[in-house]
Amino acid sequence: MKKIELIDVGYYVVPLESILVDALHGEHKNFELVTATVKLSDGSIGTGYTYTGGFGGAAIAKMIESDLKPLLIGKEVLPPEQMMKYMNTRIHYVARGGIASFAISALDIAFWDADLKGRSIPLCEALGSKSQKVKTYYGGIDLAFTEKELLDSLQKQIENGHTSVKIKLGKADEKEDIARVKAVRKLVGDDAIFMVDANMIWSVPQAIRMAKALEEYNIFWLEEPTNPDDYEGYAKIGQTTTIPIAMGENLHTIYEHELAVKVGRISYPIPDCSNICGISGFLQVAKLAKEYSLPVSSHGMQELHVNVLAGLENRGYLEFHSFPIYKYTIDPIQVKDGYVEPSKDPGVGVNFDWDILGQYKQ
Amino acid sequence: MKKIELIDVGYYVVPLESILVDALHGEHKNFELVTATVKLSDGSIGTGYTYTGGFGGAAIAKMIESDLKPLLIGKEVLPPEQMMKYMNTRIHYVARGGIASFAISALDIAFWDADLKGRSIPLCEALGSKSQKVKTYYGGIDLAFTEKELLDSLQKQIENGHTSVKIKLGKADEKEDIARVKAVRKLVGDDAIFMVDANMIWSVPQAIRMAKALEEYNIFWLEEPTNPDDYEGYAKIGQTTTIPIAMGENLHTIYEHELAVKVGRISYPIPDCSNICGISGFLQVAKLAKEYSLPVSSHGMQELHVNVLAGLENRGYLEFHSFPIYKYTIDPIQVKDGYVEPSKDPGVGVNFDWDILGQYKQ
Repeated sequence: MKKIELIDVGYYVVPLESILVDALHGEHKNFELVTATVKLSDGSIGTGYTYTGGFGGAAIAKMIESDLKPLLIGKEVLPPEQMMKYMNTRIHYVARGGIASFAISALDIAFWDADLKGRSIPLCEALGSKSQKVKTYYGGIDLAFTEKELLDSLQKQIENGHTSVKIKLGKADEKEDIARVKAVRKLVGDDAIFMVDANMIWSVPQAIRMAKALEEYNIFWLEEPTNPDDYEGYAKIGQTTTIPIAMGENLHTIYEHELAVKVGRISYPIPDCSNICGISGFLQVAKLAKEYSLPVSSHGMQELHVNVLAGLENRGYLEFHSFPIYKYTIDPIQVKDGYVEPSKDPGVGVNFDWDILGQYKQ
Repeated sequence: MKKIELIDVGYYVVPLESILVDALHGEHKNFELVTATVKLSDGSIGTGYTYTGGFGGAAIAKMIESDLKPLLIGKEVLPPEQMMKYMNTRIHYVARGGIASFAISALDIAFWDADLKGRSIPLCEALGSKSQKVKTYYGGIDLAFTEKELLDSLQKQIENGHTSVKIKLGKADEKEDIARVKAVRKLVGDDAIFMVDANMIWSVPQAIRMAKALEEYNIFWLEEPTNPDDYEGYAKIGQTTTIPIAMGENLHTIYEHELAVKVGRISYPIPDCSNICGISGFLQVAKLAKEYSLPVSSHGMQELHVNVLAGLENRGYLEFHSFPIYKYTIDPIQVKDGYVEPSKDPGVGVNFDWDILGQYKQ
């Protein structure tokens, strides 16, 4: 019987190259990374992680250390999905989303990594696909950029290999949002995939008005037009526009994703392994999406999600997020002609460069 | 302009007199208490708190210390509801329930306490009622008790002044649950208010079957018959039984309570100031309940909730919970003929005895 022997937690605050701004969260000067490394009694080792935009990292690390570690050390290793369920059930009263979903995510990814490394299998292969490249788009956090800075930034990303982009909306002046969309559409060309993201800032009537105004720019999806808790509001917005509606980064349980699909009738579910209880949680959402004949896309941590999406039949789009976690890994992922290749390494395919990351350890 | 000058956080692990067991959470050997004391620039001081059944306390304290305190120190004091909204918005990405709702609760209660103490007003009066006593019931965590222990425990509570009781259900053998209900009904008499609580352990079909079998015992409410995320399941259970359905302790945002009332069609919403973002969050649920012509009841921390419920027109029932936080306050609340009197002290009416509590500080 294989047991859990050690769990090592790391908490890092990593500075961003420039200050990034979106409509609801305000300024991002750095991102937080919490890593969890597990060692099993057969000698296999796995590392998982989660990240935040600047709040909650210390509490996530504390919850792993104080609550989850004591529940896990010495325990028999079960398949990752069962471990995820066990953690959620035991701390249920303070879980059902929030910090617990982030903490459980880091450990779930670590258990997947240890399991796959122990069996010498890369993640995408374990999920069913040998090596499918994944369509990606650049996701900017660019609301504070001037229009010129916005276009320069996207031009740079196109030169980096991107063919699809997403920009933030939610300016105080709606006309400014529309002008930016017009300019970006001109930059990327008529056929490029181009999404927009309002980070929950609009009311439902405002979102309906904005969606109407955006239709002529062939928007691929409109992300988080309003409060993610207003599932009926999402349905209303979706019913009045031809632009498909997307959401997911703020939904941290499978039940919330169910409400988004079933009640909110969104077209693009976008879970994030870092806050939906790991790869196990992401796969639940992918299965749900499949039941509704929808693709599943991803938010953030592209260096991991490329390996998840590559393995899924109903894979949608990989967000190439502006928090560059991949830069702190050995052999960072690269974009080529709008696609990213999954890792062929055994495990989840994300191996941190601890020397570079170490300088940001708290 | 009044500003926030200091925030002091305390984390306590308080042993219980005996081990308490419910269907989902297993054994409780102690409870955790996290206190937050705020000092404002006009010299007013307030203390708030939250509690858990044994997990999450350290992470809650950490979140107040690392995330919320830096957002609040030096900030202008706004009315408590606005402070609560500000905290939730700023840390939204790691909030929407979970640990954040507990952390914000402690601070919200502290801001209410400071505000009311500054104005020399007791909470129930601030909410609109001068001094209404509140109907209470004893809420046992008694699933592991033998039937004899269960009856002895309730008999003791009746001698303490209780006239209404709630017991835990969820035994592996359904017949045993029914036998316990029959015995308790005999003990408390035909007219006593008697609730049962399954702590989410049943499937929807099992809950429907059990509710049917319980009907002849005149059960006042059936609490958490199934997974609180299954709002449609709650509606199904409610439609098939004459027993009113109750829930709330696991709902940590106003949106979840809305789903419980609107989709789940529950009869008794039971929020808890310790995890619904404080008194401000509780009042949102009370308002919601009123819109649906429902009473609002409370879970846990009876020493605080008596002062909230006493001030509300649509007050329901005060749970006298088995975690005896009130024993660590100056002038502990008392039950008399099934009622508890609200505090006449300025503030929220909960003043800890720091000397007694201090021995459990972590």
